[in-house]
Amino acid sequence: MSLIVQKFGGSSVANAERVFNVADIITSTYKEGNNVIVVVSAQGDTTDDLIEKAKEINPNASKREMDMLLATGEQISISLLAMAIEKLGFPVVSLTGWQAGMKTDSNYSNSRIRKIDAERVLLELDKRKIVIVAGFQGINRYDDITTLGRGGSDTSAVALAAACHADLCEIYTDVDGVYTTDPRIVPNAKKLDEISYDEMLELASLGANVLHNRSVEMAKKYNVNLCVRSSLTRAEGTVVKEAVKVEGMLVRGVTKDNDVARISLCGIEDTPGKAFRIFSLLAKKSINVDIILQSIGRENKKDISFTVAQSHIDEALKVIEDSKDVIGYENVSYTTKVSKVSIVGAGMVTNPGVAAKMFEALYEAQINIHMIATSEIKVSVLIDEGTEAKAVKAIHDKFELA
Amino acid sequence: MSLIVQKFGGSSVANAERVFNVADIITSTYKEGNNVIVVVSAQGDTTDDLIEKAKEINPNASKREMDMLLATGEQISISLLAMAIEKLGFPVVSLTGWQAGMKTDSNYSNSRIRKIDAERVLLELDKRKIVIVAGFQGINRYDDITTLGRGGSDTSAVALAAACHADLCEIYTDVDGVYTTDPRIVPNAKKLDEISYDEMLELASLGANVLHNRSVEMAKKYNVNLCVRSSLTRAEGTVVKEAVKVEGMLVRGVTKDNDVARISLCGIEDTPGKAFRIFSLLAKKSINVDIILQSIGRENKKDISFTVAQSHIDEALKVIEDSKDVIGYENVSYTTKVSKVSIVGAGMVTNPGVAAKMFEALYEAQINIHMIATSEIKVSVLIDEGTEAKAVKAIHDKFELA
Repeated sequence: MSLIVQKFGGSSVANAERVFNVADIITSTYKEGNNVIVVVSAQGDTTDDLIEKAKEINPNASKREMDMLLATGEQISISLLAMAIEKLGFPVVSLTGWQAGMKTDSNYSNSRIRKIDAERVLLELDKRKIVIVAGFQGINRYDDITTLGRGGSDTSAVALAAACHADLCEIYTDVDGVYTTDPRIVPNAKKLDEISYDEMLELASLGANVLHNRSVEMAKKYNVNLCVRSSLTRAEGTVVKEAVKVEGMLVRGVTKDNDVARISLCGIEDTPGKAFRIFSLLAKKSINVDIILQSIGRENKKDISFTVAQSHIDEALKVIEDSKDVIGYENVSYTTKVSKVSIVGAGMVTNPGVAAKMFEALYEAQINIHMIATSEIKVSVLIDEGTEAKAVKAIHDKFELA
Repeated sequence: MSLIVQKFGGSSVANAERVFNVADIITSTYKEGNNVIVVVSAQGDTTDDLIEKAKEINPNASKREMDMLLATGEQISISLLAMAIEKLGFPVVSLTGWQAGMKTDSNYSNSRIRKIDAERVLLELDKRKIVIVAGFQGINRYDDITTLGRGGSDTSAVALAAACHADLCEIYTDVDGVYTTDPRIVPNAKKLDEISYDEMLELASLGANVLHNRSVEMAKKYNVNLCVRSSLTRAEGTVVKEAVKVEGMLVRGVTKDNDVARISLCGIEDTPGKAFRIFSLLAKKSINVDIILQSIGRENKKDISFTVAQSHIDEALKVIEDSKDVIGYENVSYTTKVSKVSIVGAGMVTNPGVAAKMFEALYEAQINIHMIATSEIKVSVLIDEGTEAKAVKAIHDKFELA
């Protein structure tokens, strides 16, 4: 008997018909002799509707009360899913985050799971019940309800899989698995059968919205066998695990990210500590900086450019302008008309020709590169907005990923 | 500094505007230097909408899962109300039933409060916070969410008032208070300033839908000062308490109840234990029997008639027909075309002329009486459906209650 955790997103349970589709997947797994823990998100647009309701009353409501409100979304979906499974004649129990022992910190609306007291979940599994757990939510040390932030249900699922030593954690979405690139851009993109945690992490952070990043980090940390698959086709998906056979396939995937803005500070005095100052000021405001490029300018002056998410551009510019005297620069410029395209692959680091091949593909497609950043398993370039689809296709073809 | 519990029903918080009206009542009370605990129901039609959602998936869903689902209704309203109070600039915290320590038995969908661990509520009051508690819900000894059944929010409020030794428990509704009879039938019906627990109990059970009966029982048991008032007019309402000055006003109110059906068993053998058998069979099915009338018939045979709620008529008839051999009767008849009209008043028992005066009023109005039942503080009669408004008006006039 295996223990399998299955996670279903909001669109998978959006209406009664889909709830029964999910109930069928769950009970099929159960009938095969497995114990099943299910993690489910709020139905369809429920969370957005609740946020609307709150905004009408108080756009600046406390995060504690927002979490109290939003947690009802998953409580509705767990009970409805349990009712569907009851209808199919299987033993089932639904549990809220706090009932399932999801202990979090007190960072309302963006909490992290501290630990899971899985006693109740294991007790119900012992009775051979299907256990439906509300994703996205937990409880802090003051017995207040918290939420993990958007995409947190993935994390709930992986955390439960780790705490209960599950044999497999299946993340059901509306895509078949992880692809070499976005199939909407490159129709012959290929589904990957396997991918490593690190590669998945890079893909997730680069905008392949298949898995929540924090959940992959957790899966890597606790060595949870993850699998991404479709609740509609039920086809074999992509397995995410530690060791993946490389088999000469150096590049696993190509991603693009349009949510990028570039900020450039020009004429910074060339003395130590300048970069530290800029980026510690940004870090204090929780602004994530991605690519950083420092150029040697003229006459003891240098330029520093970096990218942030577009939603952070105003705040980042304010920080920089407020600290003009502290940082000491001549002028600041920025643009949001850029995109980031990246290749990811664990084999990359030992194959020096990979980056060059990527640049060649872009050159052949006549796409100009503004910035370059590399890590052990990825190469990212910043290019003009509007050229990213062409770039992805060119790179995908060059590496023969189809 | 007084401690005041205020309870608001679903219609009082049905939309953003009404939520702010309620928030204004609460913060006004707080500003006067009082500590305030608020109990609130689910918004408007939320509970009905959730029931619909459940029925679509499984009309025979377990009561445990129904309670899990329905409890979200109050969780939504407590958080929204707290957000409104935050907007007005007052310290506030919302608590679900389990967070407020509402411990119930495990009779899902119709639980009773076992006890309240008010520690958290008192802790928040100590910090001078307004405490918003989800009505209608609690938690059983297995840490599962339970609901108290319809109207249970009144009970939550009174139980909290008792547990926290509140000085007053205000039940806000859409009526001004308790009237001598339904003002829609008798326009000159008079609002009562005071009423005793026992009188209120009789009125509540007789269909004056102002207060949930169980809440009045609890208020009587723990001597909680209750007050019924309108959240719209905010006028002084009706105080419900132990001792009420009678001042010659023997009859406090006239009520009618159309949700009545009469069942008659004819030709029952006149031997001991027959009545016991009938009513214990009905009690086993949780069918409440109201008026019972036994007539001496002919030749060692008797007839027994009784009334039940119309919603119980099918089940009651089935019980009786299934047990024909055990009970031993010749035939059964029933009608739903009857109404019950009652007068209630604590002074009644020591004034023998009261019942006669009621019958006189009905005679003058040419209304025929089918059954009569009396208790220490009420007299009820069963009359033809359709004549009840005329009856109420006649009795109200006869006792000069206006």
